[in-house]
Amino acid sequence: MHEPADALAAPRYTGPRTFARLPAVTDLTGVDVAIYGLPWDGATTMRPGARFGPEGVRSASAMLRPYNPVQDVMAFGNLSCVDYGDAPSVPGYIEDSLARIVEHVAPVAAAGVVGIGVGGDHSVTLGELRALAAAHGPLGLVHLDSHGDIWDSYFGRPLNHGTLFRRAIEEGLIDPARSLQAGMRGSLYGPGDYAMHAELGLEMIPWQRLARMSPADYGDRVRARVGDGAAFLTFDIDFVDPSYAPATGTPEVGGPTSFEALEFVRALTDIDFRGFDVVEVAPAYDGPGQQTSLIAANVLYEMLSLVALRRKR
Amino acid sequence: MHEPADALAAPRYTGPRTFARLPAVTDLTGVDVAIYGLPWDGATTMRPGARFGPEGVRSASAMLRPYNPVQDVMAFGNLSCVDYGDAPSVPGYIEDSLARIVEHVAPVAAAGVVGIGVGGDHSVTLGELRALAAAHGPLGLVHLDSHGDIWDSYFGRPLNHGTLFRRAIEEGLIDPARSLQAGMRGSLYGPGDYAMHAELGLEMIPWQRLARMSPADYGDRVRARVGDGAAFLTFDIDFVDPSYAPATGTPEVGGPTSFEALEFVRALTDIDFRGFDVVEVAPAYDGPGQQTSLIAANVLYEMLSLVALRRKR
Amino acid sequence: MHEPADALAAPRYTGPRTFARLPAVTDLTGVDVAIYGLPWDGATTMRPGARFGPEGVRSASAMLRPYNPVQDVMAFGNLSCVDYGDAPSVPGYIEDSLARIVEHVAPVAAAGVVGIGVGGDHSVTLGELRALAAAHGPLGLVHLDSHGDIWDSYFGRPLNHGTLFRRAIEEGLIDPARSLQAGMRGSLYGPGDYAMHAELGLEMIPWQRLARMSPADYGDRVRARVGDGAAFLTFDIDFVDPSYAPATGTPEVGGPTSFEALEFVRALTDIDFRGFDVVEVAPAYDGPGQQTSLIAANVLYEMLSLVALRRKR
Amino acid sequence: MHEPADALAAPRYTGPRTFARLPAVTDLTGVDVAIYGLPWDGATTMRPGARFGPEGVRSASAMLRPYNPVQDVMAFGNLSCVDYGDAPSVPGYIEDSLARIVEHVAPVAAAGVVGIGVGGDHSVTLGELRALAAAHGPLGLVHLDSHGDIWDSYFGRPLNHGTLFRRAIEEGLIDPARSLQAGMRGSLYGPGDYAMHAELGLEMIPWQRLARMSPADYGDRVRARVGDGAAFLTFDIDFVDPSYAPATGTPEVGGPTSFEALEFVRALTDIDFRGFDVVEVAPAYDGPGQQTSLIAANVLYEMLSLVALRRKR
Amino acid sequence: MHEPADALAAPRYTGPRTFARLPAVTDLTGVDVAIYGLPWDGATTMRPGARFGPEGVRSASAMLRPYNPVQDVMAFGNLSCVDYGDAPSVPGYIEDSLARIVEHVAPVAAAGVVGIGVGGDHSVTLGELRALAAAHGPLGLVHLDSHGDIWDSYFGRPLNHGTLFRRAIEEGLIDPARSLQAGMRGSLYGPGDYAMHAELGLEMIPWQRLARMSPADYGDRVRARVGDGAAFLTFDIDFVDPSYAPATGTPEVGGPTSFEALEFVRALTDIDFRGFDVVEVAPAYDGPGQQTSLIAANVLYEMLSLVALRRKR
Amino acid sequence: MHEPADALAAPRYTGPRTFARLPAVTDLTGVDVAIYGLPWDGATTMRPGARFGPEGVRSASAMLRPYNPVQDVMAFGNLSCVDYGDAPSVPGYIEDSLARIVEHVAPVAAAGVVGIGVGGDHSVTLGELRALAAAHGPLGLVHLDSHGDIWDSYFGRPLNHGTLFRRAIEEGLIDPARSLQAGMRGSLYGPGDYAMHAELGLEMIPWQRLARMSPADYGDRVRARVGDGAAFLTFDIDFVDPSYAPATGTPEVGGPTSFEALEFVRALTDIDFRGFDVVEVAPAYDGPGQQTSLIAANVLYEMLSLVALRRKR
Repeated sequence: MHEPADALAAPRYTGPRTFARLPAVTDLTGVDVAIYGLPWDGATTMRPGARFGPEGVRSASAMLRPYNPVQDVMAFGNLSCVDYGDAPSVPGYIEDSLARIVEHVAPVAAAGVVGIGVGGDHSVTLGELRALAAAHGPLGLVHLDSHGDIWDSYFGRPLNHGTLFRRAIEEGLIDPARSLQAGMRGSLYGPGDYAMHAELGLEMIPWQRLARMSPADYGDRVRARVGDGAAFLTFDIDFVDPSYAPATGTPEVGGPTSFEALEFVRALTDIDFRGFDVVEVAPAYDGPGQQTSLIAANVLYEMLSLVALRRKR
Repeated sequence: MHEPADALAAPRYTGPRTFARLPAVTDLTGVDVAIYGLPWDGATTMRPGARFGPEGVRSASAMLRPYNPVQDVMAFGNLSCVDYGDAPSVPGYIEDSLARIVEHVAPVAAAGVVGIGVGGDHSVTLGELRALAAAHGPLGLVHLDSHGDIWDSYFGRPLNHGTLFRRAIEEGLIDPARSLQAGMRGSLYGPGDYAMHAELGLEMIPWQRLARMSPADYGDRVRARVGDGAAFLTFDIDFVDPSYAPATGTPEVGGPTSFEALEFVRALTDIDFRGFDVVEVAPAYDGPGQQTSLIAANVLYEMLSLVALRRKR
Repeated sequence: MHEPADALAAPRYTGPRTFARLPAVTDLTGVDVAIYGLPWDGATTMRPGARFGPEGVRSASAMLRPYNPVQDVMAFGNLSCVDYGDAPSVPGYIEDSLARIVEHVAPVAAAGVVGIGVGGDHSVTLGELRALAAAHGPLGLVHLDSHGDIWDSYFGRPLNHGTLFRRAIEEGLIDPARSLQAGMRGSLYGPGDYAMHAELGLEMIPWQRLARMSPADYGDRVRARVGDGAAFLTFDIDFVDPSYAPATGTPEVGGPTSFEALEFVRALTDIDFRGFDVVEVAPAYDGPGQQTSLIAANVLYEMLSLVALRRKR
Repeated sequence: MHEPADALAAPRYTGPRTFARLPAVTDLTGVDVAIYGLPWDGATTMRPGARFGPEGVRSASAMLRPYNPVQDVMAFGNLSCVDYGDAPSVPGYIEDSLARIVEHVAPVAAAGVVGIGVGGDHSVTLGELRALAAAHGPLGLVHLDSHGDIWDSYFGRPLNHGTLFRRAIEEGLIDPARSLQAGMRGSLYGPGDYAMHAELGLEMIPWQRLARMSPADYGDRVRARVGDGAAFLTFDIDFVDPSYAPATGTPEVGGPTSFEALEFVRALTDIDFRGFDVVEVAPAYDGPGQQTSLIAANVLYEMLSLVALRRKR
Repeated sequence: MHEPADALAAPRYTGPRTFARLPAVTDLTGVDVAIYGLPWDGATTMRPGARFGPEGVRSASAMLRPYNPVQDVMAFGNLSCVDYGDAPSVPGYIEDSLARIVEHVAPVAAAGVVGIGVGGDHSVTLGELRALAAAHGPLGLVHLDSHGDIWDSYFGRPLNHGTLFRRAIEEGLIDPARSLQAGMRGSLYGPGDYAMHAELGLEMIPWQRLARMSPADYGDRVRARVGDGAAFLTFDIDFVDPSYAPATGTPEVGGPTSFEALEFVRALTDIDFRGFDVVEVAPAYDGPGQQTSLIAANVLYEMLSLVALRRKR
Repeated sequence: MHEPADALAAPRYTGPRTFARLPAVTDLTGVDVAIYGLPWDGATTMRPGARFGPEGVRSASAMLRPYNPVQDVMAFGNLSCVDYGDAPSVPGYIEDSLARIVEHVAPVAAAGVVGIGVGGDHSVTLGELRALAAAHGPLGLVHLDSHGDIWDSYFGRPLNHGTLFRRAIEEGLIDPARSLQAGMRGSLYGPGDYAMHAELGLEMIPWQRLARMSPADYGDRVRARVGDGAAFLTFDIDFVDPSYAPATGTPEVGGPTSFEALEFVRALTDIDFRGFDVVEVAPAYDGPGQQTSLIAANVLYEMLSLVALRRKR
């Protein structure tokens, strides 16, 4: 049973920064959840820096304690959790970098361990989905983000943090009929942009509507769409308003508070998630208070809690 | 037809920073909207730095795309928009600086082009109003701010970012009977401060009340007050809560989120605005995430959208 | 009658920074309220730096004006208020440091002057309570915070910013039956953590519930609990969401906005507060906009307003 | 005898920030040196913010201890020193602001007290010189800066932080024949710029030459030029390289280190300085380490030491 | 004759930020020097962000005035200089991005205009060299940097900001026999690393030796090596010590001051430079004082001055 | 043989941050050097935050490569080096915290492994010396710092980051006759302060003199003083000028550059160091470029190189 170092014995500011002060372990025997970093940010179209997302989230996650009072579950202590290290990447070469991610995630997926990735720009999710779909077949996608990331191409090339879910559909990694995107907002290229979601078979709830839904309603809607099959939850930190989460590459103002964002994630119980990620944390754009990394660490913690809740029931 | 550089051809981080990547043009032929900077901050009573507001907003506005899905309108593409450059100013000399602003804005007003100013401290609005009233007569003022800016004098002198609307009324530039201020909050000099609004013939909704109104109600109230005549919308960034918009000179805590602020602006349809401004952005007080400038750029974008909507109808 | 320097005569950015530009005075004759700094941060379990809280709050409080329009009361001008300076502290020695705080606060308590402390980490409150209980007997505690601070010990030692209210109960400084804690949130050590409040005789409202209460309901609940006896209001700045108040030692995401936080404080009328404090402001973790210190200064101002309101009635 | 609070009794991070923790006193009886702030920055041609220079320097000066080992003199303890508060200013009105400075400094000059001003942009020196010359006649100017500040006008107006010494000569406040400027560097408007110094009767040593002189040689050269008459030392913080002193309005790269800068000031013994100032500290442009304010506080301390040395001999 | 906007007419903080306030022009008729941005940073092995280098340098270069007193030459005014805009780039695809750079620079090279590139990570230089060598044949390389950038490959792939000069030699773009690298320092992979320079036919002066050479000696050494042929000067900002220039991707402590760095560049007179660049400026890692961008702008200015000097002679 | 992760296989920004990407190991078998963090900062008299020194230095040390070209030695690869984790500490209790440090360091000392501590405030060195002297007897102290840290007491209590070497002498942990302090500068409490060094039997070279010595002379002087016995090298980061190293608690302006500081450390060959430390790194006071942590990581690397050199000879 791997669990975090005891914060009442040695203060939380001590020791090398692993996720949530978990042991750094690559042997998956007996492991329930593996958290890994995916420090690639070569595909971002505006501010880079998400390669330091894993470092930032590791640092902020030292604050986490084992028990989640909102979900009434031990996030640590019943599940065996580890820091599984980072996938390598190759600056300048997106296909090579995605291949490194597949290689890193594949053994986790093969071992039936639940993986939680910490990006990196959103293109890393394509690598994760390639590894997970190879093990589990096409996944239902639950996607919280301010952008849909289904554009066709940027600058004449197919891979990019704004095109990956179109690629994932084309590659058969996700099943659009079991997928739901939510939180989209901000200016677009034209009136046809929102139509693309339906053309690809995806359901999409823009922020203007999600803002008026309760977390419980959102949870019901997701469960109805995703069903009992294997699923993946991807959380782009720019879903959260940039006042709460400034440290990201393509911020869109006018979004949810951190409280609202956490409540939406907490509502996603009773879904068979085989993997999760939190992406687009670029710590250089945070102030000294590390607020974005703190939110990301808490989102990761709520993902863990969803796994723990499912095991408990 | 002037429009922004194509973000799918060259990434948005390329090129000199003009507003929204628009061409820098001073020939007003065929132009619908001219955006200009008003980098004067000599009249601020606390933190200076709004002279760099235009630079900050230009930088953040690179993120804007042409289509506004909330208003269902092309903000760019149907309107011909340009970056009209900045008014000069004379550090230490407020009257000279206001004269430079009048000189810069007057040709825009005379050509019937809608102008959007980016401040600069709020005193720049007095310059804009002098130019606009010369062309269009007294204007109805729509004012979102945490301060009323109608004090009589500071330190024995008449011009200042806290006195300008009293001056504008005295000079006949705005018509108080067609004007409405909203969002006022924060500590005051005495119980008589709020009475001054009525004494000047202005309507005022403090934030404590606006917080409980819907954007639609606010829009109705403004339309009822302003009527069909020519109007001006001035948006002081300190209307927004300083957690969202820290980069300003005289922040007042406990205000609206950026989402709420944008919704109030979006409600201001069907008004004959001849000019707009966004003022008091002082980028040195932002964190590295540029969040205040991002909000200001989006407010400017909503102003453009109001113009586009009116043309469309 | 001590009051702030006149902001219409000399701008608010002038002069040494005292709280709210009040005179720095240690003679308590005729004084109604004494504001003092308690710059000790040796007991914090994560980020230190709250020793600079008094400096940060003094700087930000220059923005305060005398009249509070929400409470319709002169916060300054009717009450005689002073900056009473700071308690010394002894880095590395918590007992010595608490003794210095007791020594600093005792004459204020003895003179019947209302004291407002500005921390410092939360352990300073133990020093204040020792001084106040000596003068007034056990106090009802009104506590807004994201943590309950009633753990038994950290690292084998009894005094710490997370254990002080257990110590205060053991020492008979506060009366748990007249005390109410609210705002608690974030991960915990185990499911038993929340049970400890009841075991100690305290009432506790976690943030998940407080978020759904109105300020008026909260005020009623506090008045019902505290009754007519002497009381103390302690406000840990980490009660506020870290997007609003990043400059603190142990932030917990997903909390109230500054507007909500101020409204909860404003609701605490008609209580016989003998002292107040605002703690855990660590300015090094603020961005350049000083937003946390601004909130703290405004909380302090609302405390002053509560005193002024009570005198007025 | 006024001296700083004892740092071995109460830590230096305690108490309202006065210069060097000196008492805030406006009664000049028995005072040797009065330190005052001159928070006016309306005349700066690039980055504003020097109005917060006095706050920044007060904060950093808490680090100063009484004994200067390089000069072997007690800077505090033998001289009676006070924090004399700040001159008011009037944002937007340079002539009014200079008048307020004259009013603030005149009593100090009249009392024969040595004044040390902390700016503020360099135009404040014109106010100081007006007050000092009224009391003492034309002064010899010792000027360390990266700019000569003798341009004729900016934007058609005479007063500005780049024109003040030309004005001071025209007004007969300084005697160019007893004045020496040093440290000038950076790009200029044309080859004639450096000729202007001689035309005005000033001696000028550019940084390219000063960099190759020893501090002792510089001191000799100054003494030879200034002679026995009354003199004034003005230190623009942009004399120091912007890596050392980034927090200033018009930085010029490629200048002296802080060690070199202090050594040049230390060399200025045996001159009859009637006043001093340190100007152009704009703290918003410092990093969190406050390095520019620290240097400014130490320059101020070396000025004090020059006074103490002269009294001692 | 294109030259900067007049800083005595409109303050330097006005207008969209072009390099040195030059006109943004793409017609090369009559142009002597074209300055362009190369905002690609996908090949960096540590901190990304140099894609914002052109924005940062444009902003800081507003401080530049026309006359260079150290070189006694008008940098602007005799030469016709323009801001030629930025090369596009394709995030994630290094070969595509280099092709875009070649396309952007080729017309400049073909027109015989001297180009000054502003990076971007150092791999952009490979694109520039491809364009220049096509027009002028193999170039002599003058290289100031803390790294030699001649490793063979990183992570199994050939293109990267640490391998480009090996590629440039292999491609015949530079002539190692006419090339000199200087400034190398910091830890290495093994004792053979420095031998690689000689193996490739390059001359290399590590910082430990350059620190003890005068700028004049360095200039002589370069002239002796480069001879009369066409040459290229590349300046990696990490040549400068990271205290002076923190805003870069792979800083190495213990390097030259900005004064020393400028003096080395100034010594490079009488060389037939056909192109220049300043690379690896990543503004997100600067403090608020923009010191790295200021240095980069001044290096660019010294490059311009070298061109102007050569024309003058 | 423990050595860093290969930076040519996985980029240096990957993986949890251990010192220099070394394995995190607590089994000392076959280990030559153990690097550990000592995150205690409760004894600092000004800015706290050095408890995050180990995190900051671990992060910056990712940049280190194995070969030191100045010393011509493999710092990694021949020596077996590990990250030995951090000593716990007890906020508020200095004696408890020192005991935890002794407990952490004692097994390293007992095993004959060379330890390198990363502070923490300077009081941690007292813990290290207690552990080392128990194993090796009294040590010769080589001390680079801007302060001597031999005051008798602060605020009436004996332990503090300014008193520790007096305590170490009293406890017989260091042999003053074999000890040399250098770099002292900044203002003092009185003319007697420097005399205390001699009274305690210590040799001391103030910065004013060290600045004029060559590194080689300094090395000779140290070797002559320390002799062949066991020694300890303590490096307070405030030895370096605060422009280079702003992230520290009690900065003193006017000190050495990072280049000079490294050269002084490199000169300390041929001494039998049994332990080392780098202290007083408080990352919250760094800018985003992490320059202080970078210097600290490089000082640590030079210490490692001294060990490697001694083994090699």
